[in-house]
Amino acid sequence: MTRTLLAVLLLTAAPALAQQSIATLPPPVFPGILTVALREDSLAHDHWAWDIAEGLTTEVGQRLAATEAEARAREWAVQELTGMGFANVHVEPFTMPVWTRGAEGAEIVSPFPQKLAITALGYSGSTPPQGVTGEIVYFESLDVLRAVPDSAVKGKIVFIDHHMMPTQDGSGYGQFGAPRRQGPTIASLKGALAIVIRSIGTDHHRNPHTGVQYFTDGASPIPAGALSVPDAEQLVRILQRGKPVVMHLTLVNQKTEGGHSGNVIAEVPGRDPKAPILLVGGHLDSWDLGTGAIDDASGVAIVTAAAKHIMDEGRPLRTIRIVWFGAEEPGGLGGAAYAKAHGTERYAIAGESDFGADRVWRFSSQLMKTDPTAYAQLTAALAPLGITKNDKGEAEGTDVEATIAGGAPWISLNQDGTRYFDWHHTPDDTLDKIDPVQLRQNVAAWTAMLAVLSGGIESGAKQPKRR
Amino acid sequence: MTRTLLAVLLLTAAPALAQQSIATLPPPVFPGILTVALREDSLAHDHWAWDIAEGLTTEVGQRLAATEAEARAREWAVQELTGMGFANVHVEPFTMPVWTRGAEGAEIVSPFPQKLAITALGYSGSTPPQGVTGEIVYFESLDVLRAVPDSAVKGKIVFIDHHMMPTQDGSGYGQFGAPRRQGPTIASLKGALAIVIRSIGTDHHRNPHTGVQYFTDGASPIPAGALSVPDAEQLVRILQRGKPVVMHLTLVNQKTEGGHSGNVIAEVPGRDPKAPILLVGGHLDSWDLGTGAIDDASGVAIVTAAAKHIMDEGRPLRTIRIVWFGAEEPGGLGGAAYAKAHGTERYAIAGESDFGADRVWRFSSQLMKTDPTAYAQLTAALAPLGITKNDKGEAEGTDVEATIAGGAPWISLNQDGTRYFDWHHTPDDTLDKIDPVQLRQNVAAWTAMLAVLSGGIESGAKQPKRR
Repeated sequence: MTRTLLAVLLLTAAPALAQQSIATLPPPVFPGILTVALREDSLAHDHWAWDIAEGLTTEVGQRLAATEAEARAREWAVQELTGMGFANVHVEPFTMPVWTRGAEGAEIVSPFPQKLAITALGYSGSTPPQGVTGEIVYFESLDVLRAVPDSAVKGKIVFIDHHMMPTQDGSGYGQFGAPRRQGPTIASLKGALAIVIRSIGTDHHRNPHTGVQYFTDGASPIPAGALSVPDAEQLVRILQRGKPVVMHLTLVNQKTEGGHSGNVIAEVPGRDPKAPILLVGGHLDSWDLGTGAIDDASGVAIVTAAAKHIMDEGRPLRTIRIVWFGAEEPGGLGGAAYAKAHGTERYAIAGESDFGADRVWRFSSQLMKTDPTAYAQLTAALAPLGITKNDKGEAEGTDVEATIAGGAPWISLNQDGTRYFDWHHTPDDTLDKIDPVQLRQNVAAWTAMLAVLSGGIESGAKQPKRR
Repeated sequence: MTRTLLAVLLLTAAPALAQQSIATLPPPVFPGILTVALREDSLAHDHWAWDIAEGLTTEVGQRLAATEAEARAREWAVQELTGMGFANVHVEPFTMPVWTRGAEGAEIVSPFPQKLAITALGYSGSTPPQGVTGEIVYFESLDVLRAVPDSAVKGKIVFIDHHMMPTQDGSGYGQFGAPRRQGPTIASLKGALAIVIRSIGTDHHRNPHTGVQYFTDGASPIPAGALSVPDAEQLVRILQRGKPVVMHLTLVNQKTEGGHSGNVIAEVPGRDPKAPILLVGGHLDSWDLGTGAIDDASGVAIVTAAAKHIMDEGRPLRTIRIVWFGAEEPGGLGGAAYAKAHGTERYAIAGESDFGADRVWRFSSQLMKTDPTAYAQLTAALAPLGITKNDKGEAEGTDVEATIAGGAPWISLNQDGTRYFDWHHTPDDTLDKIDPVQLRQNVAAWTAMLAVLSGGIESGAKQPKRR
């Protein structure tokens, strides 16, 4: 197929056999020499991103929002960012509820007794310590659950299946994640005893995928868990035998008010303090099952390493602000707190890295419309990393979203998500999943982006290296 | 990350910690029982798609547009479609120029004599039989070539590099394909002796990728070839030694006017002949280097097998029209000829399969706006195949594009393109690249789509099976 020729044909409304005249091409664009040098240097030599991801996952480990582990992570972050030589390193605290996981397990009582791997979804209701027992009722989709009368599920354990497959852009997560997000509320309102779902994941390992959900519409919290994909498929096979299936389910957990979280902030001060800010970030908190390596130690590591490369070269015109957001996983609380405190400042760009550590394959930005020259320069600077421009992109990212909603221009450097939902929110989210070569490609992309949008780096005015 | 929760937050402009109320969800939707049955049956048992792809690539092989091979392919198609029991099987001919490949080769004369794997781009100019010899001048992008003075390339052989990487949606082909599409014209206008490009491909095999280009803006045809990716990388390494590099290039080929091509058309007649038509297709022609298995025997095979499953079940309300388009590769001539002849008819949908044989991962359709009920039914019918809806999709496809431009509603069943540009337009485009399991998933998707949009299938009114 010749789909681009087609696009050209459409653009020019020309007859077949025509091709875009070269006279209609936009002017040639070249990335600046310094941008290229910084990009290539970070692609070949960056060690900062690995150091941060390795350090945070090793010396802190899991960092569940509003727990003491997340507090230790903030201390670690302040020390690291200060040691790297950034300015204005500080924590901006906020309060929030704390949800923590207790004992959990699932077993088929009949007809074929066996244990299944399960974990509670965030903000799940709790079973008593001894668990609950109920009959499983199968739903091939959330819509089928929505359509049945309450009597079909009352007092039973709802099980919702789905067919999520890997996508490079992660687009399946929206549609196929509905059982996790809306399933518990719908099951509760219909009087179900509990709900279990097939994990919102694309792997076949015995690792269930947790993730956030909230009970809305006045629904009372009920126990809500995710079976690993192999266990969900096993449950389907058991159900296909046609006999009633009884499950014993233990999902003990606790929710308390008045927890503490916070955002950790650091800066590369610009030569012009009044110039709009370059805001880059990722999130410091993680789910509690793994060590949060790809979600999102890698993200804070990538953007921080990129800022470090700019800082070590010299002083940008615009201030670069790095935010390691707190409490993203429970629903972007750090991002909301940041926007409340800083939403009225002026931004040149806002972007976050929060989709693993695999290579950037595509980028998009609001600058396409608001600053086409900068967009063309970004396109030229990123293409040698194999990054395609996406003229149809839209803003993405939980942490910077509230700031973007307040008017900050957005940029998205899209990472390859083909493997992401194999590990997302599971015990398998550990350092070994980070490919150092792809991690450096990310750093090179963010470094090139910051260099293009820096407003110019004054090499004579280097920041002091403190480490 | 919790990007869908984010999307929900954006939609509802709610504060953090909010989640979509279930009261705001659209009504539940279920695919019809017959749609599910047809989908599952074709997923498990389809053999028609394989039979067609295997037959066409074995009994005809390559099918370069307007050659006698493409004529043989039309005869094969008429026999096959007739044998399968379709109605109104016929050929609609058109005329066009014929471009054919002759002897080709490239070798480094100095400083390190060696042969490189090369092939001519479509409509390349021809070297004399004994070839031409010139100094290579390197360009890291098309924009650099555009910017240099004519004197930098006059009488030399231009070489353009790029950094295309695999993408699931094939989006890199547009941006990174520019050296092939515009490079030859620009090089010619600057007085270059010839042009060679790094193949527009994502593999590392010694197979160059051909593809169409046209000389525009009054440019005289010059020899234009693509080096295989390993050979292009080898040439870069040789150039990096800093010595002048001289290449001997032979690209002999021929262009003549008055060739013959044609579209092959078949139908499943609907119960209501006045109802808008379901138009599905792929292209019959191929490049000459392989046997055109994934580009596009698989495409015509998939849509034809799907129509066969509907026909064998009963009679749809709407006519299904299958078109095996001629001369797509030179720029969609068959699609243009079809639209000229049939553009004023009424269509319920128009879609084509022309992106390999790997699984459908996503779909989009104009019906999202014009018939949301049908769009929701398609979403529900395709989700169990792991297919995500894409609410932001746009029309795609060279063959049906002219018909869509004339007002037909479009649908795109996007195939996974991760491997596609490894084989696209190379000698490696052969039957072994078709995974029978993924091929059946394609057939199941197209069958489900046709079932949903059929207007109802009357099972008592089956078509006669002729084979």
